[in-house]
Formats: sequence, C-alpha cells, structure tokens
Amino acid sequence: MNPLSSPLVTDLYELAMLQAYFEQGMTGTAVFELFVRKLPPGRNFLVAAGLEQALEFVAGLRFGADELDWVARSGLFQPQFVSRLERLRFTGDVHAMPEGTVFFPDEPVLRVTAPLPEAQLLETRLLNLVHFQTVVASKAARSRLAAPGKRLIDFGLRRAHGAEAGLLAARASYLAGFDGTSTVAAAPLFGIPVFGTMAHSFVQSHESEIAAFRHFAAVFPDNAVLLIDTYDTLEGARKAVEVGKSARVKGVRLDSGELGVLAPEVRRILDAGGLSHAIIFASGNLDEYRVAELLGAGAPIDSFGIGTSLVTAADHPYLDAVYKLQEYAGRARRKRSAGKATWPGRKQVYRHYRADGCFARDVVSAEGDAQEGEPLLEQVMHAGEPLPRPKLAAARERALAQYARLPAPLRALEAAPVYPVEISAALRALANEVDRATGA
Amino acid sequence: MNPLSSPLVTDLYELAMLQAYFEQGMTGTAVFELFVRKLPPGRNFLVAAGLEQALEFVAGLRFGADELDWVARSGLFQPQFVSRLERLRFTGDVHAMPEGTVFFPDEPVLRVTAPLPEAQLLETRLLNLVHFQTVVASKAARSRLAAPGKRLIDFGLRRAHGAEAGLLAARASYLAGFDGTSTVAAAPLFGIPVFGTMAHSFVQSHESEIAAFRHFAAVFPDNAVLLIDTYDTLEGARKAVEVGKSARVKGVRLDSGELGVLAPEVRRILDAGGLSHAIIFASGNLDEYRVAELLGAGAPIDSFGIGTSLVTAADHPYLDAVYKLQEYAGRARRKRSAGKATWPGRKQVYRHYRADGCFARDVVSAEGDAQEGEPLLEQVMHAGEPLPRPKLAAARERALAQYARLPAPLRALEAAPVYPVEISAALRALANEVDRATGA
Repeated sequence: MNPLSSPLVTDLYELAMLQAYFEQGMTGTAVFELFVRKLPPGRNFLVAAGLEQALEFVAGLRFGADELDWVARSGLFQPQFVSRLERLRFTGDVHAMPEGTVFFPDEPVLRVTAPLPEAQLLETRLLNLVHFQTVVASKAARSRLAAPGKRLIDFGLRRAHGAEAGLLAARASYLAGFDGTSTVAAAPLFGIPVFGTMAHSFVQSHESEIAAFRHFAAVFPDNAVLLIDTYDTLEGARKAVEVGKSARVKGVRLDSGELGVLAPEVRRILDAGGLSHAIIFASGNLDEYRVAELLGAGAPIDSFGIGTSLVTAADHPYLDAVYKLQEYAGRARRKRSAGKATWPGRKQVYRHYRADGCFARDVVSAEGDAQEGEPLLEQVMHAGEPLPRPKLAAARERALAQYARLPAPLRALEAAPVYPVEISAALRALANEVDRATGA
Repeated sequence: MNPLSSPLVTDLYELAMLQAYFEQGMTGTAVFELFVRKLPPGRNFLVAAGLEQALEFVAGLRFGADELDWVARSGLFQPQFVSRLERLRFTGDVHAMPEGTVFFPDEPVLRVTAPLPEAQLLETRLLNLVHFQTVVASKAARSRLAAPGKRLIDFGLRRAHGAEAGLLAARASYLAGFDGTSTVAAAPLFGIPVFGTMAHSFVQSHESEIAAFRHFAAVFPDNAVLLIDTYDTLEGARKAVEVGKSARVKGVRLDSGELGVLAPEVRRILDAGGLSHAIIFASGNLDEYRVAELLGAGAPIDSFGIGTSLVTAADHPYLDAVYKLQEYAGRARRKRSAGKATWPGRKQVYRHYRADGCFARDVVSAEGDAQEGEPLLEQVMHAGEPLPRPKLAAARERALAQYARLPAPLRALEAAPVYPVEISAALRALANEVDRATGA
C-alpha cells in the first residue's frame, strides 16, 4: 500500500459512516465545503495551496487489493461493504479557489459535490493536503513580504514532519514567493530551483578550514558558497578572501552568532579583499520577524535560508481548517455546535476592489445569489475528471500579484484590522430557514 | 521515484559535499551523532522514537534510475559522480538508544560510523525521521502522564503535516503510551488499534439526530459511540438514552462546548436513562493541559481524542535536533560556532539510578572511557545490516516503564528542575585536546 495515496489514510469513522450510508441507500448528492474558521493570532490573510495534490488524490481514489483485504479482515465491516468499496471511484465535481489566491476565514476554498459516500470519504486526506500547504504558504508569504528583492530559500527538510511534509513545504513556499529550496527531490517532482552550500561537517572533516574552502571552490568553480562560521566567522571571512585570490567565490554563508553584527563586518572584509561580488547568505533559526529585523537594521544580507520555522509554521503549526456538510439531497444543512456553527448551502466568494486595485472586501453568498464582485471559486473537476489548471509557476505569479493588491496594513507582519468578509443577506436568510426546519 | 524512500529527499548540499569527498578520496571512517541541543520550554524529557523507520531508510539506501537520471541531467555534477552514486550503499554501523528510551539534551540518541560520504548522505532524512517521531512521542508522553488509566486516541491525521506525518504520529503516540489512533492505515502498517465514532455530517445528513443515532446503532451494534453535540449536547444525550432503550449504545462523544460542565450533566442523563455502562468520549481542541484540567476538576470522561495539538506538537512543533560530525579518519572533531559548539568523539550515555529505582543522573562520556551506570546506546546495525530489534509493542512497554522511573517532578506538566546530564572528565579533556589541535 502506498501511504501517500492509500484510501486507508483516513479516519476510521469515514469508513464506518460509509458502511452506514451504503446500507441505508444514502447516496444522494452531498455538498461539502473546506474552509478555515479563524486566523491564527497575528496572521492577516491566508494563501490557498495544495489543490494540485488534492485533485491528484481525488482523481486517483480507489481501494487496491491490500486495502480491501485489510477492510475484510478487520472484523469491523460487513462483506458487502468490501465489494462496494472495490467499485468506489470519485464521480463528482470540485470547485476551488486557484492556488495562490489570498483568502480569509469563513470563505470556502474548496467545494465537493458528489454522492454522499464519495464526498464523505475525501474528508480526512483532502483536509490533510490542503491544510498543510496552506499553512506553509501563508507562513512563507510573510517572509516574502518582509524581504522584498531578497532571495529566499526553504532550508527546512530535516525538521519537517516527514519527507512528504518537506516536499510539500518546498512546493508551498515556492508557490508563495520563495525562490527555491534545498530539497533536491523538489526539482524533479515540482520543477522548483534547488540551492545548497556546505555543512559544518565538510569543514570539520578537512585538515583546516581553508583547505575545505579551496577544495570546495575547485569542485564547484561556479557555485561555491563557503560556510564561514564553523570556528570563527570573521576568520572564516578572511579565509574566503584568501581563497578568492585564486578561485571564484560566489558567496559566504553565516549560520550562527549575531548576524546583524557579523554581516556588516563580513561585508567589509569581503569588499576590502576584492570579493565585492560575493553574496552573503544567512541562515540559522530565521523566521520572518528575524529577517525583517535584520533588514530593518541594514544588515547587508542577500539571501536567506529559512528552515524549521517555515516548514513547521512554528508559531502556528495549524489552521482551524474544516470540511463540513452544507447540503444533502437538495436541502441545505448546518451544524450549530457551540462555537463551531457553519453557514449552510453551496457558496461562492465575491471579491470587491478599491479604485486603486486593492482588495476592498469579500462577500460570501449562496451560490445562486447573483452578486457584484469577482467570484473566487471556479470549477476544477467535472464528474471525477480534473479540468486543465494553472501550473505551479502561474500559481506563484498569482500569489505575488495578490500580495500587491492587499491593503497595506494586511501586508505587515503585525496584526492588522480584520479584513471585511461579509455574509450576504441571502445566506443569512438561508441559515434561518435551515434552523427553523431542524427545530432550532 | 518514491518520495518516502528516495535518496533525493535530501538537501542539495549533501550531494555537493559527496561529489567533493569522492573527488578528493575522502572516504575515511566518519562518526556522526544525532542529538538534541536543548529542551523546549516546559518540556522535562524526551522520548526516543523513529529508529525503526530510520533503519529501514538506511538499509534501503540506493539511487534508482530516475534519481541518477536527474543527477546526471541537473548540470550540477560531474559524470563520474553519477556512477559513484549508482554503486553507493550504506555499509557502516549504527548505534542507538532503543525506541521508547527517555533521554535528555546533549545525549546522542543515534550514532553512525561509516565511510564519510555514506554517513554524510544520511543526515537530512535520518534527522527528518528521528526528529519528527521524537517530537510527537515526547508530546504524547505528557498526555499519557496527565491521564493515568484513561483511554487516549490520536485523532490528528487531518491536520498532520501530510499523510506520512499522520501515520508516523499515530505510531509515535502509540509508542509513547497512547491506546490507539483514528488513522486506519496505521493498523495494517504498524498493527496499532484503530478507533472511530461518527462525524457531524452523519448526523446532519439524516432527517433528524435521533434517526442518525438509531441508524448507526443498528449498523454497529457493538461499537456505537454517538456524537451528541451537532445541535445541542444535552438534547443529544437524551436522544442517546432514547436509542439505548432498544439498541446497545457503547458511548457518546462530546466535541464542543464547555466539556467540564457538559460531561457531568451528560453522565447524569446517561445514568438516569439506564446507560451507566456507556462511556463518555471527549474531543475538540484538547491537549495535555486541557486533559489535566478536566480530570483535575473531576469531569467524568473515559476517553480522550487528541488531534492537532498532538500530531503537530502545536506548542513546540520542533526540537533543536542535529546530526554532527564527531570524528573523522581516527581524529575527534568538534564545531565551535557561537551557541552551537558540540562535544567531540564517539560517545556513550550512562544512566545512574537512585535506590528507589528512579533515574538519578546521566553521564555522557567518550565511548572508550569505562563508566559506572547503564549504557543507553546499543548497536542496531552492523556493516549495513540491521540487527534484530524490539517490536513496537516492546518499545511502548519500554516507554511506560521509563516514565515509572522518572523522578516525580519530571513527570509533571510544569517545568521541573533540569535533570542532571554530566559531561565526563574524559570528554572535557578530549574537547580541549581537539581545540588545541585545530588552533582554538
């Protein structure tokens, strides 16, 4: 079984509900929507990401022999359920915001319309895929906005939550405006530019630091970025200058110490030693706040490697993302649990713009309720078949274009006044109607 | 290419260094150690996890045709490097603490002894695998200690950072003492017990809540845990009682609202309605603090579903875990970067116990330096072949036994005085010697 595509990568309750739905013939059309309930403190917006992998998962959904065998042997299910699962494919429609779209709480980013068992079964992995990339893209956007014109590289694979997380974080951060990643497999899998320097072990394994630098510069004559902090950063910079007399040194990397103090001193050493073309690459416990602080203090840093804080979204490693039933068998539905109530029915999000082109406000309405503004959800799958969609590079362009149209306070790292997301009168009326029908 | 086992799931610099090592003939024996530099605030100990997957990765390390093709076409490497990679296998030794061992900062949990390029290449994915499971196991241990005798279920897949993260979190939390998971694939892959109830969508898709309950209880006569908070929790409890008059109700689940207030009221309704055997299952934004608070206040909750906070380790989603060169070609090495200096040489950790059997202190020493106490690292791989090792169930038993021997303050959720980890005189002397040799 392939853990990345197996339909058993789901919660047990999905299968339990499916058995009940099949048994009762509850295969009417269901509409589920995926949305985020609220922003984490300090975040001003979210960036939609992960649709590509979500659609691959949906289009490829099927139970293989291994999986059916487990279901049969588990003792939890009835034999006829196994044969229903064997035939199960996703035959429905999906609407979604294109990847790279800036969005806000209460706005559906994805909507599934399908027979109830099919739509239900998607819940866990669909959330898992869209949630994580959206978490990382929304985090990466902040570094992108904090460091205009600087090169930003994802360095996080080693502390990402698994290999898939590392790969998807490379993708999501690139989508959100990063320039590349250190994760090699992201190049063949997603076409993302890859970057790398050297580790401290490289320096340590040589007889001396300068021997390590000379060796690396000889092997990579076009690409040698020398890690200069293994023993003493300023001494390391002087050795880089020495090496630069007889070989090309593309740049130096600082991975520890007080970067705001060291970077200017290193810059002076490089410039005085004839390496004014050499870049300074900084890494080591960086996040968007530290990057903004360094640049605000004028640190002459050209490139940043951002790792753990990015790929784990360390300050807020999750969003309150959910996938909720909004309609079944032609009737709108809603949940009214304390603090977790939802707006019923199939919805569309309409974006309104100011005269200067910036976002003014969004309106969430029932799908049929014609509204002004730009509709953000579009159809991405028809009867189980994915429709043509933008490539990763286009999603990245979309994200960058969206940042440019964010009202200025939302672009800041600090918490801004909440962006207006209005619930239309039609949607409020529908909620009241649903409550009356279910006896609220 | 399989993203879960591909050697391209690594940082580009690993490949860059490998090319340089091969070109210079630097294939002498290297010793790398994996350790955590410091505890996150509020954590008192760590639980070693992930060794199983790490050894699978190491033993299976090889470059397939796809991967070699990418390396060749990338333009970054020389042709002879591709053929070196094609032949590359891991031929070295690995020593490690068994999974389930409680450990502390500065203690190597894993040591690799191998030709430099082989040992270097492991860095990124080895860290990625051991780091994440250790993060989750160390987090899960806290809930286990906070809820003695209660059933704890991992509910986190949907907000885990990918499918692999969800699966490995199910494994790591079970290893650390959880009772099971909602993630189905964890049963066939790891033999972990799986649990599940129903979603709000199940209730919403029926004409009424009680119809949903009756239906579920009929389909799962032995296992029906009814989700009672979709509309109104106490009304839901009354409906569960109604259903219990003609069907078996195993329990009810509360997923929202003030659980500390609702649980006793629900308990009273169930007991008064003849469902005193029915369990109360709680979920919804739970973590070890919330669980401790609810139990401390006497909430009659039997089982807890803990999701997002567990699988993302939301308060501290990463550890300062590193993999550092400690010896090369027979000579101990160390890094002296500001705030990131390491102790050199191959090491062993010796645990000392108090008269009552609790841990007293650990001593980290050079491997050859005979010490009292129980050595914690043992050989787990010889010349590229994994040695027989404990099953997951045994690792779980080990973790539970270790908690029982933790000094009481370390078992609390609150920060305890730091557990003593001493650096032996022999190791300090070695560090001084290394510094003199590298000109500190």
